[in-house]
Amino acid sequence: MFIHNKKLQYTVRVARPDPVLASFMLEQFGGPQGELAAAMRYFTQALGEVDPGRKDMLMDIATEELSHLEIIGSIVAMLNKGAKGRMAEGAEEQADLYRSLSQGCSVQTEALLYGGGPSLTNSAGVPWSAAYIDSIGDPTADLRSNIAAESRAKIVYERLINVTADADVKDALGFLMTREIAHQKSFENALNAIHDNFPPGKLQGKPEFANLYVHASHGNGETLGPWNSGGDWRRLDDVESALPLGGGNGEAEVQLTSEEDKFISAFIRRTRSDPETQPATNAEFGGGRH
Amino acid sequence: MFIHNKKLQYTVRVARPDPVLASFMLEQFGGPQGELAAAMRYFTQALGEVDPGRKDMLMDIATEELSHLEIIGSIVAMLNKGAKGRMAEGAEEQADLYRSLSQGCSVQTEALLYGGGPSLTNSAGVPWSAAYIDSIGDPTADLRSNIAAESRAKIVYERLINVTADADVKDALGFLMTREIAHQKSFENALNAIHDNFPPGKLQGKPEFANLYVHASHGNGETLGPWNSGGDWRRLDDVESALPLGGGNGEAEVQLTSEEDKFISAFIRRTRSDPETQPATNAEFGGGRH
Amino acid sequence: MFIHNKKLQYTVRVARPDPVLASFMLEQFGGPQGELAAAMRYFTQALGEVDPGRKDMLMDIATEELSHLEIIGSIVAMLNKGAKGRMAEGAEEQADLYRSLSQGCSVQTEALLYGGGPSLTNSAGVPWSAAYIDSIGDPTADLRSNIAAESRAKIVYERLINVTADADVKDALGFLMTREIAHQKSFENALNAIHDNFPPGKLQGKPEFANLYVHASHGNGETLGPWNSGGDWRRLDDVESALPLGGGNGEAEVQLTSEEDKFISAFIRRTRSDPETQPATNAEFGGGRH
Amino acid sequence: MFIHNKKLQYTVRVARPDPVLASFMLEQFGGPQGELAAAMRYFTQALGEVDPGRKDMLMDIATEELSHLEIIGSIVAMLNKGAKGRMAEGAEEQADLYRSLSQGCSVQTEALLYGGGPSLTNSAGVPWSAAYIDSIGDPTADLRSNIAAESRAKIVYERLINVTADADVKDALGFLMTREIAHQKSFENALNAIHDNFPPGKLQGKPEFANLYVHASHGNGETLGPWNSGGDWRRLDDVESALPLGGGNGEAEVQLTSEEDKFISAFIRRTRSDPETQPATNAEFGGGRH
Amino acid sequence: MFIHNKKLQYTVRVARPDPVLASFMLEQFGGPQGELAAAMRYFTQALGEVDPGRKDMLMDIATEELSHLEIIGSIVAMLNKGAKGRMAEGAEEQADLYRSLSQGCSVQTEALLYGGGPSLTNSAGVPWSAAYIDSIGDPTADLRSNIAAESRAKIVYERLINVTADADVKDALGFLMTREIAHQKSFENALNAIHDNFPPGKLQGKPEFANLYVHASHGNGETLGPWNSGGDWRRLDDVESALPLGGGNGEAEVQLTSEEDKFISAFIRRTRSDPETQPATNAEFGGGRH
Amino acid sequence: MFIHNKKLQYTVRVARPDPVLASFMLEQFGGPQGELAAAMRYFTQALGEVDPGRKDMLMDIATEELSHLEIIGSIVAMLNKGAKGRMAEGAEEQADLYRSLSQGCSVQTEALLYGGGPSLTNSAGVPWSAAYIDSIGDPTADLRSNIAAESRAKIVYERLINVTADADVKDALGFLMTREIAHQKSFENALNAIHDNFPPGKLQGKPEFANLYVHASHGNGETLGPWNSGGDWRRLDDVESALPLGGGNGEAEVQLTSEEDKFISAFIRRTRSDPETQPATNAEFGGGRH
Repeated sequence: MFIHNKKLQYTVRVARPDPVLASFMLEQFGGPQGELAAAMRYFTQALGEVDPGRKDMLMDIATEELSHLEIIGSIVAMLNKGAKGRMAEGAEEQADLYRSLSQGCSVQTEALLYGGGPSLTNSAGVPWSAAYIDSIGDPTADLRSNIAAESRAKIVYERLINVTADADVKDALGFLMTREIAHQKSFENALNAIHDNFPPGKLQGKPEFANLYVHASHGNGETLGPWNSGGDWRRLDDVESALPLGGGNGEAEVQLTSEEDKFISAFIRRTRSDPETQPATNAEFGGGRH
Repeated sequence: MFIHNKKLQYTVRVARPDPVLASFMLEQFGGPQGELAAAMRYFTQALGEVDPGRKDMLMDIATEELSHLEIIGSIVAMLNKGAKGRMAEGAEEQADLYRSLSQGCSVQTEALLYGGGPSLTNSAGVPWSAAYIDSIGDPTADLRSNIAAESRAKIVYERLINVTADADVKDALGFLMTREIAHQKSFENALNAIHDNFPPGKLQGKPEFANLYVHASHGNGETLGPWNSGGDWRRLDDVESALPLGGGNGEAEVQLTSEEDKFISAFIRRTRSDPETQPATNAEFGGGRH
Repeated sequence: MFIHNKKLQYTVRVARPDPVLASFMLEQFGGPQGELAAAMRYFTQALGEVDPGRKDMLMDIATEELSHLEIIGSIVAMLNKGAKGRMAEGAEEQADLYRSLSQGCSVQTEALLYGGGPSLTNSAGVPWSAAYIDSIGDPTADLRSNIAAESRAKIVYERLINVTADADVKDALGFLMTREIAHQKSFENALNAIHDNFPPGKLQGKPEFANLYVHASHGNGETLGPWNSGGDWRRLDDVESALPLGGGNGEAEVQLTSEEDKFISAFIRRTRSDPETQPATNAEFGGGRH
Repeated sequence: MFIHNKKLQYTVRVARPDPVLASFMLEQFGGPQGELAAAMRYFTQALGEVDPGRKDMLMDIATEELSHLEIIGSIVAMLNKGAKGRMAEGAEEQADLYRSLSQGCSVQTEALLYGGGPSLTNSAGVPWSAAYIDSIGDPTADLRSNIAAESRAKIVYERLINVTADADVKDALGFLMTREIAHQKSFENALNAIHDNFPPGKLQGKPEFANLYVHASHGNGETLGPWNSGGDWRRLDDVESALPLGGGNGEAEVQLTSEEDKFISAFIRRTRSDPETQPATNAEFGGGRH
Repeated sequence: MFIHNKKLQYTVRVARPDPVLASFMLEQFGGPQGELAAAMRYFTQALGEVDPGRKDMLMDIATEELSHLEIIGSIVAMLNKGAKGRMAEGAEEQADLYRSLSQGCSVQTEALLYGGGPSLTNSAGVPWSAAYIDSIGDPTADLRSNIAAESRAKIVYERLINVTADADVKDALGFLMTREIAHQKSFENALNAIHDNFPPGKLQGKPEFANLYVHASHGNGETLGPWNSGGDWRRLDDVESALPLGGGNGEAEVQLTSEEDKFISAFIRRTRSDPETQPATNAEFGGGRH
Repeated sequence: MFIHNKKLQYTVRVARPDPVLASFMLEQFGGPQGELAAAMRYFTQALGEVDPGRKDMLMDIATEELSHLEIIGSIVAMLNKGAKGRMAEGAEEQADLYRSLSQGCSVQTEALLYGGGPSLTNSAGVPWSAAYIDSIGDPTADLRSNIAAESRAKIVYERLINVTADADVKDALGFLMTREIAHQKSFENALNAIHDNFPPGKLQGKPEFANLYVHASHGNGETLGPWNSGGDWRRLDDVESALPLGGGNGEAEVQLTSEEDKFISAFIRRTRSDPETQPATNAEFGGGRH
């Protein structure tokens, strides 16, 4: 069960309201790399996890991410506190309110739709979606996803720090950014505590294709590096001549029953394209017979 | 520019149509771990990439993923070929058609909406969304995201192999699965070819929080491991006593102008909750005065 | 800050795995009336709330809803535990695995995509969206939204109880259902603790239209009741004769500058529909000139 | 069947085109609290309703909401009429057109994508989604949802009035706002015309949990009021000591067959986290072996 | 303003409830080719239309489509009427209710979430989205979109007729299907009543590329027809040799200021991929140092 | 299989970075009428196509559209190249970076979330969705959809040209626009090469409703034209008197079993609306009993 302590994990001081900056901050509240995505990613993994060690770690970090969601949401609420009052009580100078709202789209949506509270949208006003969560229930894949997610969140915090002038907001963002670094380390260690974590899963696949690099894009700018040559890489340069890779004719086929064949053949006949046709088209007659 | 060779990268043989199996395969056509997601992930990264080596690699792999999208889509088309004809030409035995469609939701949606062609949905019929793509334009984060994405795709192919009885379809799925392993290696090598790739980005953050493990979930099942103890970890066990971490009072505050304060105070007064009220509620009177 | 106690708020016993029943339960995990929607609804309101009493109540209930999300997610995890193992390790009898997966769409998506863990989707596999949350930052509106949300969640739990045979699962669902009733009462009392809570907001509107009932649908089945007649209702029966309600000509007009008029007039001329045309159409010639 | 009278229900006068103001107005055209959401909410309820009185009322109000959709859409069309011509015919002064479009995101999307017509998006350009509609087919829940929806719509109209300087547009918004008040009254009366409307549905739940207030958030700011104390409330303050509420061990368990156990145990062994591992990680070696 | 007559435009008789068939019918209620999409497509075009003839036609057809939405929704309500009662009152035989719900995903979602009323989803349970509407405010494009939309809707009705055994439901579907044919003819005639409707819009483009067919896919199966040869087509067979089409070097370039160049160069240096690196990767060491 | 040539199909020159213009261009990268939508529309149709001629054409054009996606994405990358460096390296003058980001919502989202690379969103930041693709697997419907899609894309390019001052960007947009014209011609010719392409599909429908024009919207502005009168049109002016069109009573009915009737009757009784009730409502007592 969750318990809540009304103290924030980190104190939030905001110098003055700024709804445009608030809309930037939403990126980490309801955006794809934000704290709700992080919390739900680890929380759902924890519920499905069958290894005691990872389950414990995932619930620790999920709980902390919920607390970070509270911090970033509190920053948004403080930045919007001025707009909230003006919008609710009717501003004396409407032109001014109109002007401040017309500066950015999430600003206006925040004010009109959400009344100045933090909304679960990204900085463009797009609602948070569970499509952001990529957990699939295999620990070696999920831990790699978590490592990647933490690195993305770290970068977004860095960018938010870069656009923020308020020193206290910067300070809180710096705390949140640093915690992503710590979480990334936990997940890297947990991944490497699984023996035989590569390839993920149980099947080994076809060995003849596991070290093949398919050079499908040719022209100026080709570069060699450890990702496509050297080591145990086999490099396939003349891609078209080698088609298809596994033998056969490179076509797709299926065996139909005679009844299935009857129906699809009727469909093909009924809708066939007649190459002998010389059609008059709208494109040609430019619209309208007069 | 892209060029297309009508040969598939790998030959597709399907023993007989099976629209239910087709709907499973959609997971890798229009699902979050599928080939369109892979292709677009690398293609958009390639366009924004400023390093020649990574740009070359990303375009190579993006191009191959488009070719895999073609393979998995061809499998779907073959598995649906029987249903396509029956649906278009009017099945003789409607009850039978109705029965086969009622087996699963994407089966019926495939037939009604997409007419038996491969649709860009996952196996539940949810349309593909660019929300699946998590590229953010920093190479150390994006490469980690790519490593994770390849490992997830590998697992989904493994599961599809596990549910497929058709040996030829299994064979093609095995090819596609193996290529994900090869791509994962390319991305791992490319990540490690960036010096100083950790922490991602440029800012180092607050050192006092980078090695702290916050033990926020307590109770039976606590476990120690390299992800939360040992090494340079500092472990915070009594989380509540330590609040807030960075000092201060753990509250959120903002400085308002007097005009801002006037509006928000008016709002607070107008909408305050009166604790002395003893309200009659719908809940209490159960609806309706008679 | 949030803290987590590894004990569930309510003990979960599941008689045997049943992935189809698990997919039903997802309705309250990642569905629109589910526990994540409830938790995020109250949590975001709490962050933006400026009244101490409501803020305290909202955070209490938000925290409890997170704990309910944990309970329902644990039920899903238990119901899926059998499928998780079979899918990961490769079932011996593929035909059987295939058959059990083909029974319902979220079953297959759960298995293929989420690997048997609880996913933040509804029972049809649609990802959770913040579009489900309708908070707008006015307490009299938000509390009414919360009352409604609790009543909907109560009904969905009742339906889940109706389809569940497992007595222990029924018991846990009964607990969760009852808590929605308690929360609805809290929100009703909190709404009624706001003096002058109707109409919501500050503006009173146009009094001549506040007690008007517009009888816009006519025919068999018309019924009188306290919602459209009696009391202070004025009933408008002959809707068309009364058009437009506020005077004027019932048309939409705007003043354009001469430059604006020049452009739109050019557009109108360029694209006008010529009623004298006697067009030949595809529809008429049935396709193709031969 | 629906019939349309070309007169608007309320006359629309707009002083001059203003695409930024138009984008605000979209909130009530294609936004979550807007008129399409209202119309579809009541229309779909009316189709499924089995009580004659509510069916009649729901269709009356649904029909009026469609007419309101027409009014707000006509306001948008008038506000965009200038931009529509300039965009279609090619503005003489491109820099000016570019500047006016760059002011807000829905402005540019309206112009580029929708060509100046009203689009079914909210003020941030997010497409309307049926996820906004929360009807569930139980009248006591649906009427509460309708009451809440009307109160939200009223607030959004109030905010739009607050940002609008054009007196005639304000007048039309005032009409629309007032009608939401009247509809809210109809729905409240209809709810209270159902005897025994609380709790919603048929099941009464577990009485020992129906009057319990769980005080899950503790710290500064705790407040007593009729929503959490007094009356018949039992207040649970020491939440953790009372865990789990219904007895048992607070854990989640399921009975597996021996075959299910065999598979999941194999999975656990294969992917276990080894706490003795001292892994080298990317995080530690900072990328690259040189 | 809209008015509603309680008679349906076409009488609906349903032989017996069938929730699986109901879920198929949802394709035309809340699906992409369904009646809400049609009604909203024409209604929003009508509001933005500046030509009197098209505005009149669009509102006529939009109004009729709303009436068709009512017909198809009534069919769904009748097909679900049995399930609605059982779900609300608690079925005596739960196993039976469970079984009927487990047959298809929208069936269960309909019952659990929407309580047997028609929901604005497609047959897979995906909520209706305004992303289905492709109007852009140019009449020659929008009329072509309407022609296409009517032809798609006609096909979906044909497929629904093919899977329906109930003669009366087939009859009503036949009515709805036929009306799409009539609407398609109206839109074709209206398109051809615009002089010079090709190319759409005002700009003529680059004449050297308007009659060029780019043969970008080569291999077995190449076919000649009036769409790629003959008439005024110029056919480009050797695509790669002709790159880039308009001259230049086929690369993308931009002029940066020296400050812009300084920043991006620093970024390139900081994140460059070192081809000399011989990285050790997870992929290679398979996880974990022991 | 796809192959990639690193030369663009058309050379891209950009005079100077401009992230606001970049956000406009996204409309054709990740927007509904953009190049990904075009490529995926034709590619998925090609995979499901059973006619050799159309399959060849669809794959040719799909491949070219991918190459156009590359061109428009390269324009975006060039326009964002300045912002990318500043955001990653930390701008010296934060106020300036903040100011430039606050100009438009996709600008800020591009920078914060996507790091200056092209993102698969429209110009308002809404992620690309496969809901944009309307293919249904019938060639006469799909070709009409393709014709419409090309005409829409042509218009959006024309509008982008109208707002762009950079002559080289205009030039590239002109190329892309012209190719849409060529593709529209191919699809028109291919449609007309199908004999008997109207009505689409196989069923002819009810002849008595195929030439009927339902005049459902009455009032000022009624207009006659070839779309609603003349030729073989029958025009129904007095819509209400003619209800229902096909005979019967215009009501919706279903035959229930006695068990079904028992449940729904119990539900009706339990939730009936009592017209004699004189309810006290929140609306009336305005909140709170004191």
